Formats: sequence, C-alpha cells, structure tokens
Amino acid sequence: MVPMLTTRLTTSLRLRHPIVSAPMAFAGGGALAAAVSRAGGLGLIGGGYGDRAWLQAQFAAAGDTRVGVGFITWALQQSPSLLTDVLRHRPAAVMLSFGDPRPFADEIRAAGAALICQCQDIAHVDDALDAGAEVVVAQGTEAGGHGALRGTITLVPETADRIAGRAPATLLLAAGGIADGRGLAAALMLGADGVLLGTRLWASQEALVKPGHHEAIVGTDGDGTVRTRVADIAREIAWPRGFTARIRRNRFTERWHGHEDDLERNLGSEGPRYRQAFADGDPEHTGVWFGEAAGLIHAIEPAGVIIERIVRDAAGLLGREAVSRLADQAVERAGRGPGTPPG
Amino acid sequence: MVPMLTTRLTTSLRLRHPIVSAPMAFAGGGALAAAVSRAGGLGLIGGGYGDRAWLQAQFAAAGDTRVGVGFITWALQQSPSLLTDVLRHRPAAVMLSFGDPRPFADEIRAAGAALICQCQDIAHVDDALDAGAEVVVAQGTEAGGHGALRGTITLVPETADRIAGRAPATLLLAAGGIADGRGLAAALMLGADGVLLGTRLWASQEALVKPGHHEAIVGTDGDGTVRTRVADIAREIAWPRGFTARIRRNRFTERWHGHEDDLERNLGSEGPRYRQAFADGDPEHTGVWFGEAAGLIHAIEPAGVIIERIVRDAAGLLGREAVSRLADQAVERAGRGPGTPPG
Repeated sequence: MVPMLTTRLTTSLRLRHPIVSAPMAFAGGGALAAAVSRAGGLGLIGGGYGDRAWLQAQFAAAGDTRVGVGFITWALQQSPSLLTDVLRHRPAAVMLSFGDPRPFADEIRAAGAALICQCQDIAHVDDALDAGAEVVVAQGTEAGGHGALRGTITLVPETADRIAGRAPATLLLAAGGIADGRGLAAALMLGADGVLLGTRLWASQEALVKPGHHEAIVGTDGDGTVRTRVADIAREIAWPRGFTARIRRNRFTERWHGHEDDLERNLGSEGPRYRQAFADGDPEHTGVWFGEAAGLIHAIEPAGVIIERIVRDAAGLLGREAVSRLADQAVERAGRGPGTPPG
Repeated sequence: MVPMLTTRLTTSLRLRHPIVSAPMAFAGGGALAAAVSRAGGLGLIGGGYGDRAWLQAQFAAAGDTRVGVGFITWALQQSPSLLTDVLRHRPAAVMLSFGDPRPFADEIRAAGAALICQCQDIAHVDDALDAGAEVVVAQGTEAGGHGALRGTITLVPETADRIAGRAPATLLLAAGGIADGRGLAAALMLGADGVLLGTRLWASQEALVKPGHHEAIVGTDGDGTVRTRVADIAREIAWPRGFTARIRRNRFTERWHGHEDDLERNLGSEGPRYRQAFADGDPEHTGVWFGEAAGLIHAIEPAGVIIERIVRDAAGLLGREAVSRLADQAVERAGRGPGTPPG
C-alpha cells in the first residue's frame, strides 16, 4: 500500500499522487500517459511538433483513461487548429512549453482543461502568470530534451516566491533531474506542489523508446549528457534561440558539438544518417533523449512501479509532520476552489 | 532559540549547524569565516590563488576562532609550501577544489585537519574518494564563481549513492544554489549531511565585498547570472578546461561573453579596466561574483542572522520526524567514529 502524499496539486487536479508525466515528443504516447494516470498521477501525451495522425492514434491508445496533452508552443503557433482538434478529446490538462502561452489560454480554459505552462526562467514565469496558468512548471537545466540554463534547485523556490507575490493559488511543479523519492521530497521542500517526470518515465516500459536507447540510459551516469543544438541541426528543426536539448553524450555529440557550422555543411549526409540511427535505436549516431537523472536510473520498469516507489520513498523521507503540513495546505486551498484568485 | 538540526556532519565536525561557508577567493576572509564558526557552522577562509600575506592576515583576523581554509587545487600545485604554512594555523579543515586532491591528502590528514574535496561531477567524486576525503562537496552549476555543468538536484543524490557504494562513512555537502531554509531542507532530503553556502554568505556584512557589488546582488534575480570564461580571460588567469565562472550578467559580460577571442586581443586595455572596476566595486565593468541564488537574496545581513534563519526555517519545513531521523543517523555514525571505514 502506497502512503498518501496529498498536496495542493493532488486536491486541485484530483490525483492520488503529485506526479505528472512530461509530454515527451515521440516517447510520451497514449500508453505511457494512461499508465501514469492509472497509477494515480496525471499522464500527458507528447504533442511534439504537431503530427495530427500520431496524436489521434495516441489519444486512441489512452482509451477512456483521463489524460492530458502537451505542446511545443512555437510549433503549435504554426498549426493552431491542432489545439482545437485535440480539445475534442477533453484532455484534463494542456501543457504549453517554449513560447508565449497567452494566445492559447482562453481556448484551453473554455474547454475545461487546466492550463499548465512550463517555464525555464523567471521571465517565463511572468508570462505564465499573465496567461492565467493554473499550473506553472519550473524546469531546470538538468532536464532531458529541450530546456535552458537555470538549475532546478534555485528556479523552484524563486518561482514559488514569484507565485506567492502575484497569484498564490497557482500550483507549482518542479521539473529537471527528479527521478526518485529523494527528488520528490526535495521538490516539496523547495515549495513545489508536485513534480513533472521526464527522463525517469522515458525509462519506463510504456515509453515509445527503442530498446537500444533504453539500454543506453541504464549504462549512462549523470555526467554522460550534454546540452547542445546538434540534434536540432541534424533534424533541421529551427528551435528559437535560448533553448537547447540535453541528450546523451555519444559519438554523434562528440563529433559535432562545438562544430555546429560543420554539421550544417554536412546536412546532406548527416541528416539521413541521424534519422536512420534514431529509427534503429542506435545509441551512438543520433540524439538519445534523456537528462542528468540518468545517473539515478538503473532499470527500465513499468511506469506504475516507478511512480509508487517514488511516492513511498518520498513520504518516508519527509515523515508524518511534513506530510501532514502539505495535506493541510491542500485542504486550505480546496476551500478556495481551483484557480480562484486569493481573497 | 534556533532548533537543533543534528546530522552526521554536525556530530563528526563538532558543529551546532550543518552549514559550512565556501572558501570564496577575495570575499571569504577571516572575519566571515570566524562569524560563520561563531554562529555554529564552520567557516572556511578562501585561499584563492595563494597570496601568502593575505592568508596570514585573514588567519589573524579569525583570531582564536576555530576555522578552516580552502584552496584552488591547481593553484596550490604551483606553490605547495603554502599548504605547509597554513597548516601551522591548525585549521579544522582544508577544502580542495578544481584539481587532483591526492598529492595533498596525506599532509592535510597528518596535520589533524579534515579533508574536504569539492566535486563538480562523478569523476571528481571518484578522485575524492580515492584521496580518502572525509567530506565530499557536490557542487552544482547554479553556484557563483567557478564550477562546471552538473545541476545540484542530480549531482547530490548520485554522489550520495556513489559514497554509499564506495565509502559510506564519508560525509556529503550540497553546494550550488542553496540560500535559504528550503534549500537546506531539500539538500538533506537529497541525501546530503549539510550544505556549503557561497553566494548567500557573499551577501553578508562580513564578506570582503565592495558596497556597489553588494547592492547589485540585492537588485538581481536568478536569471541575471551567466557561466562564462570572460572574467578569467580579463584577469589573465589560466583556468583548466571544463571550469567556468558564474558571475552577474552586466555590461562586461554582454560585451565579451561569446566574443572571447576579441577580449584576448583587447587585453591591453580591458585587463586594467576590469581590475580597476573590481577595486572600485563598479557592478557593470568587471566580474561580480555571485550565483543563481541571487534571486533568493533580498538583503545584506550579518552571517549569524543568515545561518540561524536558514536552520530554523529548514527544521520547520522538515518537521520533527525527519529531524529525528537525521539525528539518529548522526548517532549511528558517531558510534563508528569519524572517517572510520564501514565495518
């Protein structure tokens, strides 16, 4: 039996556990999202770069399980009708990352979904609060995949202070480098209401990840990743300035990281090579998309097993008094109702 | 009255609070170290680049208060007799950062000082354990001044696991981005026995920091720093590859960060300009040496006030059960004696 870890997040979003899965492009499909939700968290399907057919298939795979979805905001801006399509599935939440969330906020709220905005710095937090986000994710540089430079251990408490000053009913998730009960307990001490798990759930049986890439994370420690532009250059995806992707250090990053201009000149051969190696699950000649938490991950397991262990370990570390205080805060917030501005 | 936060660190090093001050070059003098120790932590004088006369003066300033000292390891290698000199002051601890600690370990231990090794990645942790360090500091990229790229929230638990596997009596401090009770509580949840505070104590009344630089940190949020080589280039200090300095984003970093070759070519004018601006406490035209924790710091206060608030807030957040568990671990370790290998 997993002990309860009740927070403002679990009460507001009606979850058993304060854990949300990152909407990882390609890896975070309907099976993973549904497994996370069935385990008591909230699973988010990765909307990625906006492949309409893939998204439909993933919502179908999630079936009747209550899940949400996440988009890369600047990609969604290029095909905004995708949001309208997806809202027909009645997602519990829509997460927006990497771009201005404000143009989409009203449509998401009107559909009854919670708006989750992922932020990489305090300037982004201000945008998210302007958009009226119900949940802000403070994502540190430790995260796998796209992100920026602030570290989780400073960004979370500074975001908590910003929220307290501007919109105290807003919920806060910590993201970036959290993979076990220690990380969840630390995030709650820093002022978060829960965590967003990416890398740890990428390393789950339900994630859409090739076996060769799963084997690679088990064999990689936390020193074995790098934040770089080379994967986006090889894929010819024009990410806005300021965002880079953390991926495994391998022969591909050793060859091209720091030699980005060379890679641009060799796209004719390197682009197809990258894509083929990705499709094959080759761990050396493509982007392998995980973060610093790799050093805390030693097996590919079912998402439900991962989530229950994290919650059990965190509750044990925190102890009854800290757990009770979090639950009291949740009750206090419930009295105001989700999203209600401070009286 | 500040509640007790007893950990394996406080018991082993005979401290009231699980807080050590970073031996900050130039800023961490004898007055700060003594104030930290008098407040119940352990203060470390910043040995920096090995200015013998300055170090003597700082030990004199610390007087009879029990303090330690820290060195930049690669700089100490250039004048190793400095260590012999300093050990005559009977420091409680010697911290080594940024280089191989092994050549100095025996001399430090023979003098009865605890060996503290600061590590920026897991490869460094292995070196520190090879050197027989009594304390390992896991320093995340959020830190002010010199450091590297791993984030605190992953480096601390991964280091804890490495220590548990190789030398479980070794103590662990978390460093990088910790500035308040939330950060200390989080560090203890991640598996640390205490914290090393840099930026938060740089922003103390006892630190050797010019008023203009102290005013700058109060007005800067956590987005307002950058990891860069430009300060070392301007000062003509040849740091080894892999280490950069986090300093305030200002006109100096805006002009030269990303244009390092230009700066090299303009050293004749820019070097003196940098040094004069540093001496003047100009916040714009020199390196201003603080980290991401700037966003959590809103006043320059006495070190003792800072330390007592951090401990009180952390103990309150953790609650009695977690505090008791940490104290039990301390008692268990005391039974083995400091530095004793696992039975």
